[in-house]
Amino acid sequence: MSYSLFEHPLFSGLMGDEEIAAHFSAQADLRAILVFEAALAKAEARHGVIPEQAAALIGEICAKFPPHTPALKSAVARDGVIVPELVQQLRGAVGGDAAPYVHFGATSQDAVDTSLMLRLKAVFHLFVARLSAIIDVMGSLEKDFGGNRLMGYTRMQPAIPISVHDRLRSWRDPLITYLDHLGRTDKEFLTVQFGGAAGTLEKLGERAEAVRATLAQELGLADAPQWHSQRSRTVEIAHRLASITGSLGKFGQDVALLTETGGEIELAGGGGSSAMPHKQNPIAAETLVALARFNAVQVSGMHQALVHEQERSGAAWTLEWLILPQMVGATAAALHLAGELARSIRRLGQPPIE
Amino acid sequence: MSYSLFEHPLFSGLMGDEEIAAHFSAQADLRAILVFEAALAKAEARHGVIPEQAAALIGEICAKFPPHTPALKSAVARDGVIVPELVQQLRGAVGGDAAPYVHFGATSQDAVDTSLMLRLKAVFHLFVARLSAIIDVMGSLEKDFGGNRLMGYTRMQPAIPISVHDRLRSWRDPLITYLDHLGRTDKEFLTVQFGGAAGTLEKLGERAEAVRATLAQELGLADAPQWHSQRSRTVEIAHRLASITGSLGKFGQDVALLTETGGEIELAGGGGSSAMPHKQNPIAAETLVALARFNAVQVSGMHQALVHEQERSGAAWTLEWLILPQMVGATAAALHLAGELARSIRRLGQPPIE
Amino acid sequence: MSYSLFEHPLFSGLMGDEEIAAHFSAQADLRAILVFEAALAKAEARHGVIPEQAAALIGEICAKFPPHTPALKSAVARDGVIVPELVQQLRGAVGGDAAPYVHFGATSQDAVDTSLMLRLKAVFHLFVARLSAIIDVMGSLEKDFGGNRLMGYTRMQPAIPISVHDRLRSWRDPLITYLDHLGRTDKEFLTVQFGGAAGTLEKLGERAEAVRATLAQELGLADAPQWHSQRSRTVEIAHRLASITGSLGKFGQDVALLTETGGEIELAGGGGSSAMPHKQNPIAAETLVALARFNAVQVSGMHQALVHEQERSGAAWTLEWLILPQMVGATAAALHLAGELARSIRRLGQPPIE
Amino acid sequence: MSYSLFEHPLFSGLMGDEEIAAHFSAQADLRAILVFEAALAKAEARHGVIPEQAAALIGEICAKFPPHTPALKSAVARDGVIVPELVQQLRGAVGGDAAPYVHFGATSQDAVDTSLMLRLKAVFHLFVARLSAIIDVMGSLEKDFGGNRLMGYTRMQPAIPISVHDRLRSWRDPLITYLDHLGRTDKEFLTVQFGGAAGTLEKLGERAEAVRATLAQELGLADAPQWHSQRSRTVEIAHRLASITGSLGKFGQDVALLTETGGEIELAGGGGSSAMPHKQNPIAAETLVALARFNAVQVSGMHQALVHEQERSGAAWTLEWLILPQMVGATAAALHLAGELARSIRRLGQPPIE
Repeated sequence: MSYSLFEHPLFSGLMGDEEIAAHFSAQADLRAILVFEAALAKAEARHGVIPEQAAALIGEICAKFPPHTPALKSAVARDGVIVPELVQQLRGAVGGDAAPYVHFGATSQDAVDTSLMLRLKAVFHLFVARLSAIIDVMGSLEKDFGGNRLMGYTRMQPAIPISVHDRLRSWRDPLITYLDHLGRTDKEFLTVQFGGAAGTLEKLGERAEAVRATLAQELGLADAPQWHSQRSRTVEIAHRLASITGSLGKFGQDVALLTETGGEIELAGGGGSSAMPHKQNPIAAETLVALARFNAVQVSGMHQALVHEQERSGAAWTLEWLILPQMVGATAAALHLAGELARSIRRLGQPPIE
Repeated sequence: MSYSLFEHPLFSGLMGDEEIAAHFSAQADLRAILVFEAALAKAEARHGVIPEQAAALIGEICAKFPPHTPALKSAVARDGVIVPELVQQLRGAVGGDAAPYVHFGATSQDAVDTSLMLRLKAVFHLFVARLSAIIDVMGSLEKDFGGNRLMGYTRMQPAIPISVHDRLRSWRDPLITYLDHLGRTDKEFLTVQFGGAAGTLEKLGERAEAVRATLAQELGLADAPQWHSQRSRTVEIAHRLASITGSLGKFGQDVALLTETGGEIELAGGGGSSAMPHKQNPIAAETLVALARFNAVQVSGMHQALVHEQERSGAAWTLEWLILPQMVGATAAALHLAGELARSIRRLGQPPIE
Repeated sequence: MSYSLFEHPLFSGLMGDEEIAAHFSAQADLRAILVFEAALAKAEARHGVIPEQAAALIGEICAKFPPHTPALKSAVARDGVIVPELVQQLRGAVGGDAAPYVHFGATSQDAVDTSLMLRLKAVFHLFVARLSAIIDVMGSLEKDFGGNRLMGYTRMQPAIPISVHDRLRSWRDPLITYLDHLGRTDKEFLTVQFGGAAGTLEKLGERAEAVRATLAQELGLADAPQWHSQRSRTVEIAHRLASITGSLGKFGQDVALLTETGGEIELAGGGGSSAMPHKQNPIAAETLVALARFNAVQVSGMHQALVHEQERSGAAWTLEWLILPQMVGATAAALHLAGELARSIRRLGQPPIE
Repeated sequence: MSYSLFEHPLFSGLMGDEEIAAHFSAQADLRAILVFEAALAKAEARHGVIPEQAAALIGEICAKFPPHTPALKSAVARDGVIVPELVQQLRGAVGGDAAPYVHFGATSQDAVDTSLMLRLKAVFHLFVARLSAIIDVMGSLEKDFGGNRLMGYTRMQPAIPISVHDRLRSWRDPLITYLDHLGRTDKEFLTVQFGGAAGTLEKLGERAEAVRATLAQELGLADAPQWHSQRSRTVEIAHRLASITGSLGKFGQDVALLTETGGEIELAGGGGSSAMPHKQNPIAAETLVALARFNAVQVSGMHQALVHEQERSGAAWTLEWLILPQMVGATAAALHLAGELARSIRRLGQPPIE
């Protein structure tokens, strides 16, 4: 099926990115939830909440457990989340005395939010690499063409001559800031979620915080009190994504305008037209604008989801699921296309007049 | 892959709808484009623009042509649209003298926009049936419980007693209006797109309008001058979809609040919790709220796409592709869930005091 | 104060429109509410719900009543609406036996929503005139320059030559459609609101519908059952406004691009720069783009407000108040600027080659 | 006039905040621009770019200069910005040889963006104080009622009992995070803007960076290379504002739901109804939800404005002006109302069972 261009059999050639998308497959989600369940059992055993043997068995099963997906699909239709059925399947597989220790003291949201964070962490790692690569290509452009002349345009009118260096700075500097932000995001926002039924970890008593800290460490996430109904983290992440695509959209818009007025840019490649074979369309540049506007639209929905009533809002939480993955897909596409576009620049500006 | 819940291997149990989604698969899009190309050839032959024999051959090939999808995928990465490569493949398959008559006088946008309209027409047909079904169920609820008492709430406070009839009216009346609007949408907004390279049909000369009218008739769409860069039609459609999901979101929100305060509603089913087996979560009701907010966010992007510069904006057009199909998916899910939710109501309100 | 550019002491030179804004002043709102209260009393007297004499007195007082605004301001801080305090003031002014008949059977929302509709009706009347004027100016441009050559641009690349006629059509045709829609809006969407405390008109018994019909007629609005919690009307209106500004945004964007590439357009005027006196900035054209994007953002909030829980949602209703008036202001500004911009076009395209 | 509730003669009782609004008046903007012009002259004199005497005179005039506002209003209609006319008036007032040194090497955007930053700095100072005050009130509630029992609700269903402490944490913790962010915002985002005609400070040569650093210091803003077309700063600020209102919206929604189910909260005050005098409407709570959704809508527009083409986009920049001040107004209102609401809580939860 193909509602989404990011996973469309044909459009994924333009907008898809298998490396990133792999982290947002159902399989990857299930895998991350199982990683969470195993780490939870391990952490609970370490602090004497559940027996060591039970934790060992749970860890073993989680490592190789193949969920029964048709049952999961029906269960989601009923429960709105994957976890209750998955936990039941897992308990069946573990069996015996250890079964009740699966998912002990946890709730669906713990597993789902932590799975998201684990996968976002992997994705952000890739985003950092791509941002760095784009910054590097722009550094090369600076070296090759930085001293070239370019007409500066303000309010869509030729203003005064600037240098290619000046324009490149407006494309590159925000990316450098975002790279720095992504680093910080890691520590502040990519945190474990663990709160139990209503966020109180009531089944773990005084060992609750210690278990959570160990769980976080096991998973390589930052530790933080539960944030079930405090969604500033996911909003912050959405904001970072939309900022990246927004600034890449400016890059795309500028390149599209450069190709329109002509003479100041030379690109390798460019898309064909079914009606006008002579044209070289700046497809990647225009797509960057579309992706920027797309994420600028989506970010509004993530902010709407901050109004997350009581201990858990099915409405607000589901809204995040509908939106955040798409924003990841759009950011992956934009980083991919911006890298390609930057690398396709053969010349920028006019040589300086001696 | 699973960025989108509407086509997610597990979440499609809750949010998916295969009947609707089938019209938004890559296959359905390709099929509709081929239908367009065949109808175009037929219409052009009828008005003497291309030879009858060529049209017959093109029609024959289009009816059974299996596009080479790997080549299409690479081509989209380059061209940003499916059509140039598809036309080239089609010309190859047609071969000989007839080949140049494939897609004669048309441009990519003609094929893509018309394909969208053909598929929206089919989808709207299904939406009409579902809206009608929901209206009917609400009619039954009216018959069974209309006279029951219900506490009226204003500003989240108990106000004065109302009847179930009053509340049902607030759920049902907007749907009746939308049903009427969908009917009109058909005639006003589901139109053929045909303009050629820059919207002027310059290759068809004086026969341009006649060909377009015949083409529209062949396809069962309304005829209209090209609207390549005038996107009020797609915005209107998005508005209709978001209106439907918005009003169904009110229905969902009301049911969720009824289940919270309790006593005035009885539902069959309800979702389970991994931590609290005693709970019956109003999953469908909450999901309706999420889908309403989702489409309310998306509609903004469709309005942004009205700023469609010059004869064709790759950026604005691509933005539509990123958003409109998702809105269709959300509307399909909402209609599905609202029907289920309405049918699951076992009792509404309290019997009248004699 | 000046949070809003539409009523900013300096920016209203560019974005303001006193004729339209007059309908959205606090005074105009109070006046319209008083018109509603007078008409309500008259309609209720006609159907024997309240005494004729009381209605006459209420009408007389309403016609000249000067509300005590400091008390209203404090009351709004407490009540969130103007009406409870205004009705109390009005009852005080009416006095005696007639006092309780003021606002009889009505609720705040009846007065507020109907006041909005009365003022929107006046504003839409002005919008129709302005749209018509712009269409006329574009008609003159068609007459003067329709046959001129223009380079057609697709995907920001020169494509094939078109005529000025073709481009003008893409600017003008949507406006003609909107003009038609505004006419219909009038009948379908500009309706009276009258439902009482929880929408049931429980105090009027069997005369409720007759009173409402008379009330509508008195006010020159369409009659309709109460729509307190069914907000498709206000969303529809927002959609119409954003459609208008969106299409005018395309006009603005096209003009800005024409001035950038140069040679194909000649404008009278254009804004100055503090740094580059030689420039002629296409201020109106760019502002049209900003206004289009502004309304495209706002329309999302109106759709969010469709999730209007129970009999009356203070949250959703207040959200409308925060957004819809601004959309009216943006539309007024866009119509004003588009008219000016169209009239400032001295030449469009290049004379045809003989 | 009253398009905006934040400066409405009547609604400002609920939504207005004169202390904050004072920084967004036209007068405050003009004053801040004059502060910029004086500081610029001083900084340029210090580095030998303009004569000391000229700077002294410019500083003297700026301190007391009364702009001619009717001329400014007409000029804005023509130029789209205040600055060109203001600079001309200022040069007239300075007169003689010093006149050309007014605004030397600067452009409109330098003055306008820096004025915004100066005023945001003052506003953020007030926001910090208000956030702190709300956090303190919540601290008192914690002390008084933290140990009380509260029913925990997940997915709108009673789940398990929690303590008031748990709920309070979900309201207060995000605010503490935002307080910390606002501190950082100051250093990273509240920067001077100084770039000249096209961002290159071409008239200042090698002294450009030194002048900018001094200018920043004079104004108490952080120094940074020009960001004319790199709008991540203003987007970041919008994100911070919408995050604050979003989390306060959750607080409001929770309080509204508590008042609906009753028994677990006691509030002083509450708004009246024109139809039902017995009701106590949670006006502030609902208004917080409306303001959260309002800012969640607006933030999308600020992200759209990241697509800021070339050296200066009149469209994107104007879009920021249309949106950011309103977001400040909404945040001011939300902080005001949240403080009031928190202070009005007389009891939260039920005393613990001994």
